[in-house]
Amino acid sequence: MKRLFLSKINVAVIGASGYTGVELLKMLIAHPIFNINYVATSEGDVKLSDLHPSLLDVFECDVQKASSKEVSEKAELVFLALPHKTAMVFVKELMELNVKVVDLSADYRLKLETYEKHYTAHTDSANLKNAVYGISELNREEIKKASLVANPGCYPTSTILATLPFMDYRVKNSPIIIDAKSGVSGAGKKCIATTHYVSINENMFSYNPFGHRHAPEIAEKLNISEDEVNFIPHLCPVTRGMLSSIYLQVEGEFDPLKVLKEFYKNEPFVRVRETPVDMKSVAGTHFCDLYAQKKNNVLFITSAIDNLLRGASSAAIANANLMMGLEEETALPTIAYVP
Amino acid sequence: MKRLFLSKINVAVIGASGYTGVELLKMLIAHPIFNINYVATSEGDVKLSDLHPSLLDVFECDVQKASSKEVSEKAELVFLALPHKTAMVFVKELMELNVKVVDLSADYRLKLETYEKHYTAHTDSANLKNAVYGISELNREEIKKASLVANPGCYPTSTILATLPFMDYRVKNSPIIIDAKSGVSGAGKKCIATTHYVSINENMFSYNPFGHRHAPEIAEKLNISEDEVNFIPHLCPVTRGMLSSIYLQVEGEFDPLKVLKEFYKNEPFVRVRETPVDMKSVAGTHFCDLYAQKKNNVLFITSAIDNLLRGASSAAIANANLMMGLEEETALPTIAYVP
Amino acid sequence: MKRLFLSKINVAVIGASGYTGVELLKMLIAHPIFNINYVATSEGDVKLSDLHPSLLDVFECDVQKASSKEVSEKAELVFLALPHKTAMVFVKELMELNVKVVDLSADYRLKLETYEKHYTAHTDSANLKNAVYGISELNREEIKKASLVANPGCYPTSTILATLPFMDYRVKNSPIIIDAKSGVSGAGKKCIATTHYVSINENMFSYNPFGHRHAPEIAEKLNISEDEVNFIPHLCPVTRGMLSSIYLQVEGEFDPLKVLKEFYKNEPFVRVRETPVDMKSVAGTHFCDLYAQKKNNVLFITSAIDNLLRGASSAAIANANLMMGLEEETALPTIAYVP
Amino acid sequence: MKRLFLSKINVAVIGASGYTGVELLKMLIAHPIFNINYVATSEGDVKLSDLHPSLLDVFECDVQKASSKEVSEKAELVFLALPHKTAMVFVKELMELNVKVVDLSADYRLKLETYEKHYTAHTDSANLKNAVYGISELNREEIKKASLVANPGCYPTSTILATLPFMDYRVKNSPIIIDAKSGVSGAGKKCIATTHYVSINENMFSYNPFGHRHAPEIAEKLNISEDEVNFIPHLCPVTRGMLSSIYLQVEGEFDPLKVLKEFYKNEPFVRVRETPVDMKSVAGTHFCDLYAQKKNNVLFITSAIDNLLRGASSAAIANANLMMGLEEETALPTIAYVP
Repeated sequence: MKRLFLSKINVAVIGASGYTGVELLKMLIAHPIFNINYVATSEGDVKLSDLHPSLLDVFECDVQKASSKEVSEKAELVFLALPHKTAMVFVKELMELNVKVVDLSADYRLKLETYEKHYTAHTDSANLKNAVYGISELNREEIKKASLVANPGCYPTSTILATLPFMDYRVKNSPIIIDAKSGVSGAGKKCIATTHYVSINENMFSYNPFGHRHAPEIAEKLNISEDEVNFIPHLCPVTRGMLSSIYLQVEGEFDPLKVLKEFYKNEPFVRVRETPVDMKSVAGTHFCDLYAQKKNNVLFITSAIDNLLRGASSAAIANANLMMGLEEETALPTIAYVP
Repeated sequence: MKRLFLSKINVAVIGASGYTGVELLKMLIAHPIFNINYVATSEGDVKLSDLHPSLLDVFECDVQKASSKEVSEKAELVFLALPHKTAMVFVKELMELNVKVVDLSADYRLKLETYEKHYTAHTDSANLKNAVYGISELNREEIKKASLVANPGCYPTSTILATLPFMDYRVKNSPIIIDAKSGVSGAGKKCIATTHYVSINENMFSYNPFGHRHAPEIAEKLNISEDEVNFIPHLCPVTRGMLSSIYLQVEGEFDPLKVLKEFYKNEPFVRVRETPVDMKSVAGTHFCDLYAQKKNNVLFITSAIDNLLRGASSAAIANANLMMGLEEETALPTIAYVP
Repeated sequence: MKRLFLSKINVAVIGASGYTGVELLKMLIAHPIFNINYVATSEGDVKLSDLHPSLLDVFECDVQKASSKEVSEKAELVFLALPHKTAMVFVKELMELNVKVVDLSADYRLKLETYEKHYTAHTDSANLKNAVYGISELNREEIKKASLVANPGCYPTSTILATLPFMDYRVKNSPIIIDAKSGVSGAGKKCIATTHYVSINENMFSYNPFGHRHAPEIAEKLNISEDEVNFIPHLCPVTRGMLSSIYLQVEGEFDPLKVLKEFYKNEPFVRVRETPVDMKSVAGTHFCDLYAQKKNNVLFITSAIDNLLRGASSAAIANANLMMGLEEETALPTIAYVP
Repeated sequence: MKRLFLSKINVAVIGASGYTGVELLKMLIAHPIFNINYVATSEGDVKLSDLHPSLLDVFECDVQKASSKEVSEKAELVFLALPHKTAMVFVKELMELNVKVVDLSADYRLKLETYEKHYTAHTDSANLKNAVYGISELNREEIKKASLVANPGCYPTSTILATLPFMDYRVKNSPIIIDAKSGVSGAGKKCIATTHYVSINENMFSYNPFGHRHAPEIAEKLNISEDEVNFIPHLCPVTRGMLSSIYLQVEGEFDPLKVLKEFYKNEPFVRVRETPVDMKSVAGTHFCDLYAQKKNNVLFITSAIDNLLRGASSAAIANANLMMGLEEETALPTIAYVP
């Protein structure tokens, strides 16, 4: 059923204080159909432009203390940008109140056993079963019908889009190497030693090698075992951006760029490049840029996304568009933060 | 006469390879009325996405070798983003061909004698006389009627908007101190020692103290003598952004924030802040953010703009909007590049 | 009395966890006479290389919980890198125990009434009276005889060295404008919103205009009233470095560079440049680089120091050298962090 | 034969204008035995402090136009920091003149056939045969006896030191993945599009995947075929620093940190860390920091060096020290550019 848009669709943002929160708001402000009708944080009681001074004279509203009851009276769909564990409490309530949810946390991304192994006990397994993993290039039709979409992690998005086209060429059971580089905004707004300017400026380092919780997410969505995924994230001195270098052992003769182009020929937000991709050409956009090159049986794929957009908030908008019967591309940013 | 927009207005961008060129294109792509019908550089013969890879799959066209004749067949208005001296050659031709021009160079900003003192001999003094200086907060009505608008310099824009509201409080003939900080994009795309990453990263310095050619532009537009303007620009390690600190000697009792708010109460693109302004809250937007504070008879005003937008390209779009009878704010960006 | 260096001099560092602490240690490790015999923080109980991983395999020791008693048994001189208010408690004890102190806090920099106006009640006014302000270019002989040296603030150091040579040319009672730019390390190691990488990267802003507590320090040492000092600090996206732009109204004919060169002709750590100074040429060194230029009666002076060295820790070493009868330049770094 | 140091040893630096040139000078200024007696560039005729303003008042001399004849009269050993192809012309002359040479170019690093395949025709194969590859951890004794040392490339240094200890555990013929990240100074002082601040700030990208000429150098020194080396360099927005992530397929049971510690137990300039290494802890030093971790049969090794020091100039000093009979560690920097 196609909806006639005589009126706007009211939406809510819960968790508006963080980086993904403000990115959601920035796109929703410009969205032709979605109407921001409720904005909340866990504390509430503040004006939006005090949380995000750049929005002064652009968009103003009172920020509420998050309440599922209230949001259900104000919005048909909610963007939930809360930490995992907190998120599932809200999702459970919101589902009962018949509000659609795009959840940006990790709480509904994984199968129950995978989740509980890597995160914590799950208190809403019923909804977990029905949640759809929100990469439209994989699950577009399911997303359209979903009430609850689990927005994917940034590292999994950049890795899965890069790797999936080549899974048929991969040597069975061979290790996948993912050497991923993230901007500092990926570490969140909290002030910690690692995000202090003096710590990360002029610096770079890997962290949590083999142990990051995005690894099982990658494995599950690529339908391989966790053992096969070797995921090493790095923090690097840029504000936003994610560059993932993926190394596969492959067999058979093929042209990597042709494979990518064929796989994504109908996808407007995946760009296949003729030369190695860079972070900046996708910063501020929903694009995932890909390039691949082969040497004997080693395939190198390099993937660039904006970690806060394609890796979080613009993916959420895309999912919400689909869930509400809109064109997927509505209000998705394509103009990069260059120069 | 209000124009009915049954059809789009064709516009051209000449000088599309530089930073201001790509900024123009980014806004024009999203512009609801202007249609990019001609794009040129001095060399031409290239695809737009090869010049600006971030535009791949967003907007594509052939880039021409600039020709006034051709542009006059293709566009009603031209954005000219060429170096000074080259610009006036094109402007002269374009005026004869009845094409409206927003000129982003310095060629039509100053009175003849000021120009020739600080730049070079002027070869188009006839049009110079009719050119309007394009800060809409100063000259809105003249811009609407103009065929040729001289787009202002970045330093003058940030300085003039900050200083003008206080000229009545200023002690006559007292020196105005302008300590301005610009991002590296202000130095242009050319690869020179100063713009090498290794030179300017983790560094900062003033350059050309008292001698920058934006000083006479500031003086002329503030209607004071060059002697009174003490302009010291600094280069700093950010890509885009301009922060100007202005120091005035003032007399009389007044509340600086009230003065600013009163002066700009009807201006949607000047924001008066309650605390010192920062570069990032205006990056990516047409806003000029202002804050002022007084200690005895010294007034400190701090002004932030995006040097490539309010300091160049979005100002050009605003001027073009006015020249073509559109609402000034059409397609002007308000959503900042944050976080 | 000249000391014979048959043996080393034992020194202590209290407050070793912060940025100035590690800078002190770096120079002391290379110091030919001073021997690090006691290192402490307020918590203690940690290995030095755990506090500062870059020192692994370079210099190792146990970090103690700070105790005046212990330090007096271990060291002839103490570098105290503690917050103000905490510092004066230790200084009082250490003076009684006959240990010499270089105090990097603000506690002994100002006259009693100035201190209490801008900081807090002083609990050690007796020692305050005898403390010597530690800029050797001003007070070399007094420092040599002092038991307690108050190490100057970073902004005052860069400002005073720049301004002092021109005080005779200054128009009486005219306002002094100081537009100072500091790297983020100046804000300390504490993780706060302002020092988060995402906040300050690609950004710049003034803070606390006219209200910074270094302004009265500047005024007192330049022997002028606080009213005459207009001090506006800015935070900028570099790790270390301080660039101060100072504007004076002057009278009389003089060549600013000649004045500087004459004033500092015997000073090895003040360099007068022929072109505007930059942060990077002094980063990692004890140098203060100066340049000045005049336009009519406005004098512009630009001063660059490393905020953590000349603005704190290398100044402390210089003072300690003098207090212990060594050559002032012993172990002071001159080789910059370039490229 | 141990030399008695009654007098200094005169050395020369040819190619003093670049980044490795100034790094050499910085260490030689502080060197207790080497005396800088000749400094040259290809143009000459300039004062050293005009080339490198940070050296003003630190070390001054006239920079000559490079001449082998002259240098042979002035120095016992030459540091040659010239581009490849130019270097071999000088080396040939200098060898005939009996001057020892540390050559920082690629001209003497590879076997003849490897060199000619990847670079150009070699015009000095006689000396090539006798050149020693200058990583002291591999070739210390040969270096001591050498007249000509080929200073290794930065990527090979960081990769070889990381990989060598594990070659026995590696699955035969399995691909080695090297995902390396270099600071911008590695691209040299030339102003090109890639090193423009605006291009690389807030950006990161791989370049020349599988095709970089350091790959055959790595292969040759690890004694494996070029086919087995999969080398992907990345440029990243830091001035100096190199972080290499290396992925090996391994077999057998072993503790990677123990292997590293055992292998480097007598090496003062390789530090084995308990957590992933970072660029900044080695910036400004001769250290190579290593960390390794295993997951099943995939081994991840992360290696950090200062690309300009351990990756070029401090390695050259170490080699020169050995060649002249000095302690290897003489004047090698250990104190990092932190914070």
